[in-house]
Amino acid sequence: MSKSAVITNITITPVAFHDMPLLNSVGVHEPFALRSIIEVITDAGVYGLGESYGDDTHLERLDRAAKNIKALKPSVYDLNAIYSACAGSLKGDSTHGGDGMAGMVTTASTEDKIFSPFEVACLDIQGKLAGIPVSDLLGGRVRDSVPYSAYLFYKWAGHPGEPDDEYGAALDPEGLVKQAKKIIDEYGFTAIKLKGGVFEPAQEVAAIKALHAAFPGIPLRLDPNAAWTLETSKWVAKELAGIVEYLEDPAGGIDGMAAVANSTEASMPLATNMAVVAFNQLPSSIAQNAVQVVLSDHHFWGGLRKSQLLAGICHTWGMRLSMHSNSHLGISLAAMTHLAGATRNLDYACDTHWPWKRREEDVIADGALRWVPGGAVEVPTKPGLGIELDRGKLAKLHEQYLTCGLRKRDDTTYMQKFRPDFSATIPKW
Amino acid sequence: MSKSAVITNITITPVAFHDMPLLNSVGVHEPFALRSIIEVITDAGVYGLGESYGDDTHLERLDRAAKNIKALKPSVYDLNAIYSACAGSLKGDSTHGGDGMAGMVTTASTEDKIFSPFEVACLDIQGKLAGIPVSDLLGGRVRDSVPYSAYLFYKWAGHPGEPDDEYGAALDPEGLVKQAKKIIDEYGFTAIKLKGGVFEPAQEVAAIKALHAAFPGIPLRLDPNAAWTLETSKWVAKELAGIVEYLEDPAGGIDGMAAVANSTEASMPLATNMAVVAFNQLPSSIAQNAVQVVLSDHHFWGGLRKSQLLAGICHTWGMRLSMHSNSHLGISLAAMTHLAGATRNLDYACDTHWPWKRREEDVIADGALRWVPGGAVEVPTKPGLGIELDRGKLAKLHEQYLTCGLRKRDDTTYMQKFRPDFSATIPKW
Repeated sequence: MSKSAVITNITITPVAFHDMPLLNSVGVHEPFALRSIIEVITDAGVYGLGESYGDDTHLERLDRAAKNIKALKPSVYDLNAIYSACAGSLKGDSTHGGDGMAGMVTTASTEDKIFSPFEVACLDIQGKLAGIPVSDLLGGRVRDSVPYSAYLFYKWAGHPGEPDDEYGAALDPEGLVKQAKKIIDEYGFTAIKLKGGVFEPAQEVAAIKALHAAFPGIPLRLDPNAAWTLETSKWVAKELAGIVEYLEDPAGGIDGMAAVANSTEASMPLATNMAVVAFNQLPSSIAQNAVQVVLSDHHFWGGLRKSQLLAGICHTWGMRLSMHSNSHLGISLAAMTHLAGATRNLDYACDTHWPWKRREEDVIADGALRWVPGGAVEVPTKPGLGIELDRGKLAKLHEQYLTCGLRKRDDTTYMQKFRPDFSATIPKW
Repeated sequence: MSKSAVITNITITPVAFHDMPLLNSVGVHEPFALRSIIEVITDAGVYGLGESYGDDTHLERLDRAAKNIKALKPSVYDLNAIYSACAGSLKGDSTHGGDGMAGMVTTASTEDKIFSPFEVACLDIQGKLAGIPVSDLLGGRVRDSVPYSAYLFYKWAGHPGEPDDEYGAALDPEGLVKQAKKIIDEYGFTAIKLKGGVFEPAQEVAAIKALHAAFPGIPLRLDPNAAWTLETSKWVAKELAGIVEYLEDPAGGIDGMAAVANSTEASMPLATNMAVVAFNQLPSSIAQNAVQVVLSDHHFWGGLRKSQLLAGICHTWGMRLSMHSNSHLGISLAAMTHLAGATRNLDYACDTHWPWKRREEDVIADGALRWVPGGAVEVPTKPGLGIELDRGKLAKLHEQYLTCGLRKRDDTTYMQKFRPDFSATIPKW
């Protein structure tokens, strides 16, 4: 083992960045999104970066895991030992929540979520030490750039009491088409995803049809976050057959998805990042053919290598693979791009919330991640993740965290401030 | 990408080493075992080693794959591209055989078999360049040494017309107990596997019971290579319940294994390296719960990383993991040891044919692979596989290949030379 690869320090910095009032089935995005920035540092002073959720419960867990890892003094190659240190730090943890996903994804593995940013940071360092990009650690690029999708949201014009944001309101099909045009004009995306579960299903079906008419030939997806009953799910599947490439989490749970997937009325591929979000859910899901597309997410599937395991499982069982996103910064985008860049069976344009954050707000130095025509990000070819921390920017977003007053993502309570009768209970329709 | 990692040359050297007359369901081992030694060389002159089968059909395929890889000039990190180059070289290949396993394993993926030694050699170089052992590339050691099992064979005293070998005959329970004592005296193995399918099942059951009596508490396994009918398999499972830790390939195929595994009479874990030997066989096997233990083998599962995918699949579905072996030299032993050393859910002592080859015959320099008490091999900690080629020894075994007259493994024809009525048709009993 090369001596310079021993982990001697880890710092975890919570940050907050401005977010827009994006609507979903559990409420509305708050004015700030929280993330944690993980720096792993070796005895030779090489640092690696990871990014994860920023909820307080999650931060406390990350801190305990970091303490365990530091006590171990592992090398950045000892990922098995680092995983054990993370799992060990969670023993007896009876706290709940901390999923960073506003309650929408609750059954992911806590161990995998805690391990993920440390693994990404270690791979960043491994790449730096070997002089190769992380995509090479993962088997080498199979594409030079990774296509992302235009991720549309129903949204308010601005946060209540504040001026309209640059996107303005989108509360009907027409507003969404306008939003899509703006976002595609800027990025050139060649696939569109709509976050649904906000309005009556008929309105959302009409929105998809309007998008289909406005962007003929562009692959579409609709994701109501399990807001629908089985009957509604089947109805939407029938209405949108041949129009969307897949329907994402129409109904809740593996059983719900299986009931829709295996219905004779619906011959629509179903995708999930809610029903199947951990390895222990795969056997039951596969036995029932509950989902045909898995939206992987290295943040909760246990890092980049375990996401490759998921990809291998999808390939083996003939499931297709797409990629999920939360509100995120550049470290996550870099990690997602390296992973997707090295994953042969990444069959769809990946999700990203990228357009919804302010352009100047990030923690990485400008220029490392390049958007190219087609709404794609070039796979960085510099060593590691190919990005560098901008400590001035990090300090600014940390200061924003300290002053923003938010300590966990809670779309529901924020929504209820303005719509006291709002309920996040699903199914809604 | 660091410039020094570009593959500029590949050499493939067929070798032959002395083997003993070990009996199995398809015949008897010939006087020589054939292997191929793969050297991958970078522009900076760093070389990596792989080892695979030595049958002529396989060698021709390896040569074509090497030509495709060299034309591509990939880096040693471009494993996705190297896999494609291997797969591309097999397009339109209508030749059969070349499995190197005497017809016992016929449904493995040819692509995975061809890719495997190139991948191992690339990982060897990756480790050398980073100054870390291959086990670190695979996630880090979870054990410092890897336990192997005493692999017993019914055997003749020596090859016909030649003097007895150092082990002598083992044609009954008493002979096997004697063989086990000798082999365990030398290596200290703490688990025993018997290759069966040679004599009437009652004799083999008696042999296992004799071994159980002679080595109380030592885990035992019996592998008849699918030589039995369903009825016989169930009878043996019942007879050996509580005595063997698993029964290996009693009946043939996924359906056969499932019928035995799901029989109410047999509550015995079944292991396989015949019914499930490729990723495309996993869905059907898992759906039927046909096997409870998979014997992985990086030579036919597509290398070390794909073996890790298999390990992850086994973990996800609650199958246990063991490791298969063919007659092999030190490069394979090193690769098996790194893989097993970094695989958390390697639940059993691995198989190895190591004791059956002459001590002085190998292609690697002495001293790199150390056997330690308990029949285990230390996971090498030097960079890469931690072994070096001994070019003098390689030349000697290549000369032996040129003069031995064998060009493919054929246990059956060799057996029929002495027992003209011998048939390899299974099931036999």
